[in-house]
Amino acid sequence: MSKTIFITGGARSGKSLLAERLAGEFGAPLGYVATGRAGDAEMAERIARHQARRGTAWQTIEEPFALAEAIRGHDGYFNVMLVDCITLWLTNLLLKYDDVAKVVADVRDLTNLFSVSKTPLVLVSNEVGMGIVPENRLARTFRDLAGEANEMIAKASDEVYVTFAGLPLKLKG
Amino acid sequence: MSKTIFITGGARSGKSLLAERLAGEFGAPLGYVATGRAGDAEMAERIARHQARRGTAWQTIEEPFALAEAIRGHDGYFNVMLVDCITLWLTNLLLKYDDVAKVVADVRDLTNLFSVSKTPLVLVSNEVGMGIVPENRLARTFRDLAGEANEMIAKASDEVYVTFAGLPLKLKG
Amino acid sequence: MSKTIFITGGARSGKSLLAERLAGEFGAPLGYVATGRAGDAEMAERIARHQARRGTAWQTIEEPFALAEAIRGHDGYFNVMLVDCITLWLTNLLLKYDDVAKVVADVRDLTNLFSVSKTPLVLVSNEVGMGIVPENRLARTFRDLAGEANEMIAKASDEVYVTFAGLPLKLKG
Repeated sequence: MSKTIFITGGARSGKSLLAERLAGEFGAPLGYVATGRAGDAEMAERIARHQARRGTAWQTIEEPFALAEAIRGHDGYFNVMLVDCITLWLTNLLLKYDDVAKVVADVRDLTNLFSVSKTPLVLVSNEVGMGIVPENRLARTFRDLAGEANEMIAKASDEVYVTFAGLPLKLKG
Repeated sequence: MSKTIFITGGARSGKSLLAERLAGEFGAPLGYVATGRAGDAEMAERIARHQARRGTAWQTIEEPFALAEAIRGHDGYFNVMLVDCITLWLTNLLLKYDDVAKVVADVRDLTNLFSVSKTPLVLVSNEVGMGIVPENRLARTFRDLAGEANEMIAKASDEVYVTFAGLPLKLKG
Repeated sequence: MSKTIFITGGARSGKSLLAERLAGEFGAPLGYVATGRAGDAEMAERIARHQARRGTAWQTIEEPFALAEAIRGHDGYFNVMLVDCITLWLTNLLLKYDDVAKVVADVRDLTNLFSVSKTPLVLVSNEVGMGIVPENRLARTFRDLAGEANEMIAKASDEVYVTFAGLPLKLKG
């Protein structure tokens, strides 16, 4: 059983940088699980920017869907695995399944790993539920799903942080 | 004079569960004031889910508008009254009055109760002001109103919490 | 070298009131740098309301664009300068330049002032990145810019607060 650290926060609030710093303390080999797909120019630019910042100590695994399998498949290989981010993973799954209950079942599979994984995990998510209720129904569904997933993951994690303006606030651990 | 606890947070961030836990500590009889109306399938499903979770120790009062009157009318009857939620109550009032000042006056009536109510109160609200400024004017009006109401209620409360990912952060008390 | 205090938070969450209270402790003469422009009725009403609340101890400087220059130009004149707010300043610059990199360069100019300004600064910003990803591309660009600017300013500040429901939470200092 190893440590699980969960980090949530708003857009560009310093989540990834905090995650890289906390994960970096475990030392190489460092595993980075990217759930985003370079589907458009904006995302491709963001992925490239993050990769350049992390540098060569990190080995990247791209996995938009089978996150639990990717973690299990590399268990014990890395000193730590950083997952960035949960929100994009949920987006990918919701678009694939079109079924909230199936996505929640995958989140449950992921949290069940925390207590058995030999490799410490650092997971990054987004806070998306503190704005006005979206008019779009899919956006409302996603907002509720993201809130529920964050709650499940935080509950199963050892340490939890929320970031504001690049500064972390410890919520648990 | 009794204790007033105020809980705010994003969508599905664990506000209601925290409120039920804190209110539950006062012991039965437990009063639950529901301000939402099962006007559509989404809301009906949410109400049913929350009711099932609370179980039979709670007695539900449905009051979409006259919140202060409902609390006054049951004063001393319950060991605690949980109001879920302020945001839906504000929505109902704004749609009814179409006048922010009248809604704010009702919020003032509510906060004036805190120091005289014999029954402790636990109030749940939502944080809706941390997203991009909405393009829709009514949404902007509501966002400002919700912020102002939260501030008024927090000021008049003895304990205040904000929740993230199911985890509470104490702001006051 | 003087103290810099940075305050972020959601809409109507008590940011300006906290800023005025913290700045007021430095005593008159108090400088207030307003970055908003009374371009429409909503904004004009908000500016008038804030001015009425501050009272006559404050001297107002209106500067929608050249914020660093305005601060430098008054250095040593006031006991403190309160900037309200960074978010409107970023909006003005983004609309003027249509170039995120140029706006970020202006933010860098501003933060470079913090360590050399003789007058203490209190800066107010908004948290806009905790809602659903906006569908509008300009809104997404602004949301990312605001997050990056808040992070840069927080890093260069001595004290940082985030407000919820009128209550401050200290993040740094």
